[in-house]
Amino acid sequence: MQFSSKLIENAVNEFAKLPGIGKKTALRLVLHLVKQNAQEVDMFSSTIAKMRNEIKFCRKCYNVSDTTTCEICNNTIRKQNFICVVENIRDVIAIENTQQFNGLYHVLGGIISPLDGIGPDQLTINALVQRIKDENIEEVIFALNPNIQGDTTIYYIGRKLKDIKVKITTIARGIAFGGELEYADEMTLAKSITNRIPVENYISAS
Amino acid sequence: MQFSSKLIENAVNEFAKLPGIGKKTALRLVLHLVKQNAQEVDMFSSTIAKMRNEIKFCRKCYNVSDTTTCEICNNTIRKQNFICVVENIRDVIAIENTQQFNGLYHVLGGIISPLDGIGPDQLTINALVQRIKDENIEEVIFALNPNIQGDTTIYYIGRKLKDIKVKITTIARGIAFGGELEYADEMTLAKSITNRIPVENYISAS
Repeated sequence: MQFSSKLIENAVNEFAKLPGIGKKTALRLVLHLVKQNAQEVDMFSSTIAKMRNEIKFCRKCYNVSDTTTCEICNNTIRKQNFICVVENIRDVIAIENTQQFNGLYHVLGGIISPLDGIGPDQLTINALVQRIKDENIEEVIFALNPNIQGDTTIYYIGRKLKDIKVKITTIARGIAFGGELEYADEMTLAKSITNRIPVENYISAS
Repeated sequence: MQFSSKLIENAVNEFAKLPGIGKKTALRLVLHLVKQNAQEVDMFSSTIAKMRNEIKFCRKCYNVSDTTTCEICNNTIRKQNFICVVENIRDVIAIENTQQFNGLYHVLGGIISPLDGIGPDQLTINALVQRIKDENIEEVIFALNPNIQGDTTIYYIGRKLKDIKVKITTIARGIAFGGELEYADEMTLAKSITNRIPVENYISAS
């Protein structure tokens, strides 16, 4: 694609580096910004730059944070002895939006996946184990994606915790709400039968 | 959507102001930037800010430009007496990419659309008429979208030019290359029959 302006071309190339944004979309975004007034665009670019320069990772749970420890870890109303283990920051936001969990988090920064060259040492697993030892944790809840890598990670961390007195659970796998039985894969359907729950629990939970 | 970080939240809100980008996509983009190193993100934001602050509109054709008059207007190899009239900057880029036009452009900045409150005075029509008078233009080629507003705009400008000796043409409307006759709308098909062209012209043009 040819542009008659180098400024436009550079801006398009920067946008096109973002995931899921091709040259045509990038051009649409850039021409949109050309039409906005200069203050708004300055606001846009300075907000992005400030975010990247000032963002920290919570030294306790590795969530993104504006301060040394994050809002969630600092919130004393939350149950300090429940840790929900997640793969990444997006999962924290997803679970927070359900408003069903009132404990703390631990962001692994990925999951064990030898094929992608990700081993336990690249994740925050040692810090997690240390936290569980030090902080008198009652329950560790794994909220990892239900696949081989997720299960491997749970198994690996589970073994590291076997000498520590702590309850270890994982979020339920089963048929999604609104889903249809006939379209569910066998694995999910099989697990949903094995891990069936008494109806009184199901009703009281909803 | 709740975020545990104000920095992330602000950045997501800025991205979500862009057309076609919702909160979820914005979050994906922001978390992508969090993972990039700080220099790259500074490069991203400074390129956007620089683009908006330094971009100019060519005082001759109203295309975006890095300088007072644009690259295309400054290019003396291009035919100076052919003007292609387009609605916006994106159309200039689209036509330039065909490499079939070697004249100059004139960007109207929109088309006449009373329903949207856009009249001739909000467009660069007077400047266009003045250019045609002053610059000894041989042909004006309208490359507007084929719809009522486009045709109205052509008609309006055509009337303004009726006392000036200049050839006025419009890009061909017809069945798109690769399109299928049976799916074409009646209007397009009808126009493509009325404006049929001798086969020798068709072959020599392709």
